[in-house]
Amino acid sequence: MWTDGRLCYGGDYNPEQWPAQVWAEDVTLMRQAKVNLVTVGVFAWSRLEPAPGRYTFDWLDEVLDLLHDGGIRVALATPTASPPPWFSLSHPGALPVTADGVRLHHGSRDTYCAAAPAYRDAARRVAAALADRYAHHPALALWHVHNEYGTICHCEQTARAFRRWLSARHGDLASLNDAWATSFWGQHYSDWAQISTPRATQYLANPGHLLDFRRFWSDTLLAAYTEQRDLLRAANPAIPITTNYVLGDWVPVDHARWASEVDLVAIDHYPSAVDGGAEEQTALAADLARGWARHATTRRPVTVPSDTATPPDPAPAWLLMESAPNQIHTAGRMHTKEPGRMLRHSLAHVARGSHGAMFFQWRAPTGGAERFHSALVPHAGPDSRVFREAVELGGALERLTEVRGDVEASVALTVDAASGWALRHPGLPSSRLDHHAEVTAAHRAFWRAGYACATVSPGDPLDGYRLLVLPALYLVDDATTGWLREYLHGGGHLLATYLSGTADEHARVRLGGYPGALRDLLGVRAEEFHPLADDDHVRLCDGGTARIWTETLRLAGAEVVSSYDGGVLDAMPAVTRHRTGAGTAWYVSTRPDDATYRRLADTAAQAAGVVPVCPAAPDGVEAVRRRHADASWLFLFNHTDRQQRVPARGVELLSATPVETAVTLPPGGVAVLRERG
Amino acid sequence: MWTDGRLCYGGDYNPEQWPAQVWAEDVTLMRQAKVNLVTVGVFAWSRLEPAPGRYTFDWLDEVLDLLHDGGIRVALATPTASPPPWFSLSHPGALPVTADGVRLHHGSRDTYCAAAPAYRDAARRVAAALADRYAHHPALALWHVHNEYGTICHCEQTARAFRRWLSARHGDLASLNDAWATSFWGQHYSDWAQISTPRATQYLANPGHLLDFRRFWSDTLLAAYTEQRDLLRAANPAIPITTNYVLGDWVPVDHARWASEVDLVAIDHYPSAVDGGAEEQTALAADLARGWARHATTRRPVTVPSDTATPPDPAPAWLLMESAPNQIHTAGRMHTKEPGRMLRHSLAHVARGSHGAMFFQWRAPTGGAERFHSALVPHAGPDSRVFREAVELGGALERLTEVRGDVEASVALTVDAASGWALRHPGLPSSRLDHHAEVTAAHRAFWRAGYACATVSPGDPLDGYRLLVLPALYLVDDATTGWLREYLHGGGHLLATYLSGTADEHARVRLGGYPGALRDLLGVRAEEFHPLADDDHVRLCDGGTARIWTETLRLAGAEVVSSYDGGVLDAMPAVTRHRTGAGTAWYVSTRPDDATYRRLADTAAQAAGVVPVCPAAPDGVEAVRRRHADASWLFLFNHTDRQQRVPARGVELLSATPVETAVTLPPGGVAVLRERG
Amino acid sequence: MWTDGRLCYGGDYNPEQWPAQVWAEDVTLMRQAKVNLVTVGVFAWSRLEPAPGRYTFDWLDEVLDLLHDGGIRVALATPTASPPPWFSLSHPGALPVTADGVRLHHGSRDTYCAAAPAYRDAARRVAAALADRYAHHPALALWHVHNEYGTICHCEQTARAFRRWLSARHGDLASLNDAWATSFWGQHYSDWAQISTPRATQYLANPGHLLDFRRFWSDTLLAAYTEQRDLLRAANPAIPITTNYVLGDWVPVDHARWASEVDLVAIDHYPSAVDGGAEEQTALAADLARGWARHATTRRPVTVPSDTATPPDPAPAWLLMESAPNQIHTAGRMHTKEPGRMLRHSLAHVARGSHGAMFFQWRAPTGGAERFHSALVPHAGPDSRVFREAVELGGALERLTEVRGDVEASVALTVDAASGWALRHPGLPSSRLDHHAEVTAAHRAFWRAGYACATVSPGDPLDGYRLLVLPALYLVDDATTGWLREYLHGGGHLLATYLSGTADEHARVRLGGYPGALRDLLGVRAEEFHPLADDDHVRLCDGGTARIWTETLRLAGAEVVSSYDGGVLDAMPAVTRHRTGAGTAWYVSTRPDDATYRRLADTAAQAAGVVPVCPAAPDGVEAVRRRHADASWLFLFNHTDRQQRVPARGVELLSATPVETAVTLPPGGVAVLRERG
Repeated sequence: MWTDGRLCYGGDYNPEQWPAQVWAEDVTLMRQAKVNLVTVGVFAWSRLEPAPGRYTFDWLDEVLDLLHDGGIRVALATPTASPPPWFSLSHPGALPVTADGVRLHHGSRDTYCAAAPAYRDAARRVAAALADRYAHHPALALWHVHNEYGTICHCEQTARAFRRWLSARHGDLASLNDAWATSFWGQHYSDWAQISTPRATQYLANPGHLLDFRRFWSDTLLAAYTEQRDLLRAANPAIPITTNYVLGDWVPVDHARWASEVDLVAIDHYPSAVDGGAEEQTALAADLARGWARHATTRRPVTVPSDTATPPDPAPAWLLMESAPNQIHTAGRMHTKEPGRMLRHSLAHVARGSHGAMFFQWRAPTGGAERFHSALVPHAGPDSRVFREAVELGGALERLTEVRGDVEASVALTVDAASGWALRHPGLPSSRLDHHAEVTAAHRAFWRAGYACATVSPGDPLDGYRLLVLPALYLVDDATTGWLREYLHGGGHLLATYLSGTADEHARVRLGGYPGALRDLLGVRAEEFHPLADDDHVRLCDGGTARIWTETLRLAGAEVVSSYDGGVLDAMPAVTRHRTGAGTAWYVSTRPDDATYRRLADTAAQAAGVVPVCPAAPDGVEAVRRRHADASWLFLFNHTDRQQRVPARGVELLSATPVETAVTLPPGGVAVLRERG
Repeated sequence: MWTDGRLCYGGDYNPEQWPAQVWAEDVTLMRQAKVNLVTVGVFAWSRLEPAPGRYTFDWLDEVLDLLHDGGIRVALATPTASPPPWFSLSHPGALPVTADGVRLHHGSRDTYCAAAPAYRDAARRVAAALADRYAHHPALALWHVHNEYGTICHCEQTARAFRRWLSARHGDLASLNDAWATSFWGQHYSDWAQISTPRATQYLANPGHLLDFRRFWSDTLLAAYTEQRDLLRAANPAIPITTNYVLGDWVPVDHARWASEVDLVAIDHYPSAVDGGAEEQTALAADLARGWARHATTRRPVTVPSDTATPPDPAPAWLLMESAPNQIHTAGRMHTKEPGRMLRHSLAHVARGSHGAMFFQWRAPTGGAERFHSALVPHAGPDSRVFREAVELGGALERLTEVRGDVEASVALTVDAASGWALRHPGLPSSRLDHHAEVTAAHRAFWRAGYACATVSPGDPLDGYRLLVLPALYLVDDATTGWLREYLHGGGHLLATYLSGTADEHARVRLGGYPGALRDLLGVRAEEFHPLADDDHVRLCDGGTARIWTETLRLAGAEVVSSYDGGVLDAMPAVTRHRTGAGTAWYVSTRPDDATYRRLADTAAQAAGVVPVCPAAPDGVEAVRRRHADASWLFLFNHTDRQQRVPARGVELLSATPVETAVTLPPGGVAVLRERG
Repeated sequence: MWTDGRLCYGGDYNPEQWPAQVWAEDVTLMRQAKVNLVTVGVFAWSRLEPAPGRYTFDWLDEVLDLLHDGGIRVALATPTASPPPWFSLSHPGALPVTADGVRLHHGSRDTYCAAAPAYRDAARRVAAALADRYAHHPALALWHVHNEYGTICHCEQTARAFRRWLSARHGDLASLNDAWATSFWGQHYSDWAQISTPRATQYLANPGHLLDFRRFWSDTLLAAYTEQRDLLRAANPAIPITTNYVLGDWVPVDHARWASEVDLVAIDHYPSAVDGGAEEQTALAADLARGWARHATTRRPVTVPSDTATPPDPAPAWLLMESAPNQIHTAGRMHTKEPGRMLRHSLAHVARGSHGAMFFQWRAPTGGAERFHSALVPHAGPDSRVFREAVELGGALERLTEVRGDVEASVALTVDAASGWALRHPGLPSSRLDHHAEVTAAHRAFWRAGYACATVSPGDPLDGYRLLVLPALYLVDDATTGWLREYLHGGGHLLATYLSGTADEHARVRLGGYPGALRDLLGVRAEEFHPLADDDHVRLCDGGTARIWTETLRLAGAEVVSSYDGGVLDAMPAVTRHRTGAGTAWYVSTRPDDATYRRLADTAAQAAGVVPVCPAAPDGVEAVRRRHADASWLFLFNHTDRQQRVPARGVELLSATPVETAVTLPPGGVAVLRERG
């Protein structure tokens, strides 16, 4: 790997926030913590190019040399996520505009419109200048393009670009009118010039319009990325290139689609929950990253620098690029992580294939908007719990250098950016519909039951997956229907939840009974929906409970697994199962509550012949196994506040201790066993 | 009647959303359901006039001929509620502007400013083109102008029109300054040009300004309607003309005042509540429509086409123009109607004089903002519960062809658009004041107690009403005071609730003690208000409870009916009664809770000599009687989930069965008895 | 004093809202109520200058003469808080602009940008015209400049003025970049022209930018005030000048800093709570006013007109300029004050040094935005409870003419506008941080425990204060640290609560451990914060409870007073005490609940040798003592609904009754005892 075979460890390093005398201390402390990779320059545009075309690289030269002398490698960022004030002042038309027509001002980050040529030109210029100067710097390990692409705009330049994109997508206006169903409310377009971005309008907007606007932005931001990537690549083809994803289905980025354009997938992960929710979010984020990374590695292997003798990890290439050393911000306040959690969360990412653990940021700043964001060196300085844990983490990561290979998983969850966007539109049968929440609920059910999950996108290869889950996969085009049919006919097990297949790729409802695209495969037909109120639930005949959604389901070949108990749907099917080809297709017409969902996950997994990662692990102990060639490594995480004992055999790497019969995990503890090889 | 003597049945039909091959199936299914009237073209402007002045009528020709051949008549709409994109692009100045100055864009419906000459010109042109081509089409039964007038704007063209309107209303600036009390906060206008629409301002706005802006929009939208009406009328005076009202006191339309300009009142009704709330909203909406219709029919009788032998119904002419075949959308989700509710709600409108039952829309679309709006032919197609119930409803309506005549009602509720608007202003003693909510509460009390209600506007004839209710009739001008005095002196019974008469027609508070305009008639005087918190209530000495409002009430001739029990107003009058002339005037200084209000309604009705429609009907069974000449028809609705028995005698029309002693209603069931004649 | 030695009594009088025939009745009623001062002309600009440069003073001449003839003196206002419509129309660029760029319109009050030269010119002109005409009018007692300064703007003229102000404050851009920490997110400014106001931006704004924008507005509004003051002063140096403060830390005005520019501090006080909260808010508001007034009187003594023989009160000069005769508006509704409360609240202000009690407004208007604001003459007219209480209050104030001197208080609370503003910024560890709420909580604790409090600004003289409280004094510059050190070394007792001293004057976090500026003085060091959820609390080992905030606190010289009990901080210090020099420094790392805080206040006060004002007063009876020369007056307020007995001796002034052993207070009653002298 490009960090000399070691797992990456470090974070965002912003030396421009500090006087030069602090830099030497930084390198000393980094070495103390065994930091080996830092991301430099993410927000340094205004320091690197203080006036148009005038570059001041001297300080960055000094920083990079200092780091190199200290043995620390650099992920060098292009600083294009935060244009300097002079840029905004010179190009007010490149400032972003909201749906209401409000032009935003400089004063934060991301104050640009990525569809504005002036911005794109300036971004390429500064990236090219960096490439010119540093593409062969010995500290350079990775290019980090931009930061968290996700900003959209409604300006006139955007509208023009949107029209070009629509023309390329739909070919002619007749196709666009058909795709968007503009016959509703008389919105038929007779000239491309009539189409604007979905600006604030009088009443409900057109769902096809909204969906294509998201897709347009994903493609536009991707183009902004690839044009930087191409010039960095040209400067030195040996250096891998990435950009850090920000997660959340509000982000107008189709991460799966982007993954084929990066050399490794990099994610920023900040759980929005504390306690158990954070562990589950961590597991899901890492599974998502690994799923996306499968697209990346299949096309462009990570380049291995010449100075390393370790063969590259053949597993999907991804990296936790940002996480918080300490606080989780949620519900209006920061939650301080208890001792040990930083290590546990970091290794939970490594267990799922991350090439290390990176943090935002190295040193807490005195000012700026995120002055209270946590850091490896906090306001209190190195004499602090957080920095001591950072040192401990550096040691732990070093001891895991040998781990490689992909995660073993037989259950795959289908994730689809467009379905996530389409379920955020107005005019749906319920305002509580959320593809990402359904993915999360399904993942949680399998996670709690002890099964490892992969994530896939529609159309991905499904070899090795015995159970494929569609969690509210609202948009299903004909190709996806074929993909599912083939999987089932090959003996696969499918578990689809409500709304899956209801609409086509343009978010048009499929007719003839719900769920239009999947009726035949699932052997059911629904006529009417019965969404539930926020505080409402239904009972199932097997004692389970469920929420959010129910529907009038009729059997059309399937058999009943469980039915509703009470209410207007009393005794009607809730969960069904259907033999399709050599496979089995389950349909879940509601959202089971956690305990119910976990039982359902167990039932479906067992039917599919899937077993838990570590059947003997007690509740609250998470197990993940990576395997490469004839070796395997078992990661065990004790998320409980009690000591736990797990039968196991091998060598525990963090303590370098042989394990004969069982490993004992303290509360919040982690163990990594080399089982074989 | 213009549907050949039958009750109207059908809904919005949008053939432009479907390929032509579906049209034939549509007519077949309509005939199967006995649909006899469909509204065509409401949102078809972009299809009818794809470019300025270029009309494509061929498809509409074909549709109208198909319908005519199928025996289905047409309410032909002018499509002006949804201008085509080309219009918005050519006339950006005719797009609406919010109070914040945000210009809204195309992309929904109602994206126009009705004060913009360019819009009005374009609207007249397309209406005239339709009139030219279809005014004598044999399928044409009714003109349906526009759709749900209610859009406002704050653009400069609006400001100019507003100033013209103000000049006409107030005559000179001195009168306007006086009416608006501009002496407060130094807002004295010295030139008409200084007056804008009530755009976003620094702090609280002027209530007179806000109120006149609503009135201006009511008149401006009415002018947009009447100019279309006049050209349609000119093309064929035999065809009746209407526009469909959207209800809700956010709508800047004085429906009572508009009613004198339509040939029949048409309302769209979508309850915002489920269960009992929906039944009550249905009853109130229908009573409102009938009240408005009294203005319509007194001036212009509905024209009867020559091909019908049935004499027209002499009752006020109104029609339920839109309703939902299935789901009620409220609280962020759809609520599916249980079997039978579509029939029950439809007949509840007919019971109160609707000339039929129309729905939005005929066939559920695949796309567009309202893709999940319910339809007579749902996404699932005709093989569905909803379509089967639609067929059943068609049969039921046919069996009620003979019903006619007005509803018997001796209680009248006074409803006033301006009072509703004025109580939405800032700076009132409580943010919970709501004229419409008070109308609803009063109506509910009498409805639950079994009394039929009429609705009237201030100044309407009151012959035949023994009890007149003023539910928070905040604005009372001197003429209205005189109207009330005359009613009381003629022996009428009046029941006024809190805030009635507090302000004059300009929303200026009347001095000398509340309620200024009615102190003498009610024999009370209040000095101070004590509004209650959201979750608070007061007790009354008779065991009742009340909410929202209380006040320091002193007797000035009246006697105490009940007093407050506990709290700061302990033992002070809550409800009073005063002999005025030959009449009796009750005053209710608070909002009684439902059970308390129902008892009060009973007490006041009995004192006025009013009896329930069907005293023997059990609780939860609604009874409505229509009477014409020597005949009468009793509608009975069982809103409970138990079978109910009602003593009655006559012929039950839905089952064509004689009833000797009693009719038995299944849960949710309806019966219509011809009692005599 | 400029009201002839009497306490001021009256309120805003707006004769322009009424026909001239009402004016005579006004004067008659004022005399009946012993009103002796009215504020005239606050919103009369559009009446005084109906067209640019054309003045109509005749009506004001008549009003002032009438008042003078009636023996009522006048606080004459400059009407600049509400420019006339003609001004807005002529100078649309002087209308205010929101952070979103929305230009607000005329239609309310305060529709101006105080940084717009056109507005400032027009304001000076009308003020000068008033000065010319009335500076020597015999009724004139006081100039009342403008009304409730507090309006901000984001227009281009503001941006230019802001840049000039920043240049004056920071000198050069390097200093500004450093102060604002623009190195974060690459916001480095290289030209003044790049800086705008903190307009709406993409994501979190810069806290230094936000803070300086508030400071800029405080200074800009002050300049708008002082330029009017200077021309009024020039017209007649004998007339004192003030402007009425509106309270609330949303107001961009540093009231302490402004106080040195007014001849007396004038506050408007409208409690936002009812019951006990209103009494406490009243006490705090009055203590704040007195604290600010100390700045005023130290620099410019109030001028005494020649026609009075009474020596001026030497105490800090301040006046309750506006309060509500009746309703308190809060939580969406008005709360009517029970009988006696108007008197009790008014005298609570006098007890703390107010030169009287003034109200908004004299007579309730029929229209305008505040038509339901309470008034001394309500809508019901003089035959009303409110007016009868107004008459009673006039008598009571007359009987207190002799009272003078400062309030006795040994506890001082430190209040700092900038800390209040800085804790409203985004990106803080909790969204619940609020300097003003902490001041309020601390004040409440001492108030309930019976101690009189003063308020001071950082740097104020501390002679006579034995206990100084820093309630979340977030911003502490080096000078303030020195001020505190000196106080402690001189034997003072300091009680600092959480976050105090965490940041410097630019809101940059101080490094090395929290609270950076005070670590040494307090003898503690904190590494990490643990803010609490809204509904959460912690227990303390002494049985207390606390909320909002906790932190990982380590002793560095201090001793533990109480520690956390349970939770993640179990057994760690919560409250500490540290000997510093001859003094004692307490640190409270959380927000104690009311009862806990009261006990803590008692403990700290006793340790500092502070005693309650009236140790024998029962709970719920508030005692305040003013002292002058050898005399003292004890005010007693019974805030309970039971009769209370307080041991005392002297003469009760309201009843003119000698008290030998005790005074008996009815529920809600007040007594004022002359104790000596």
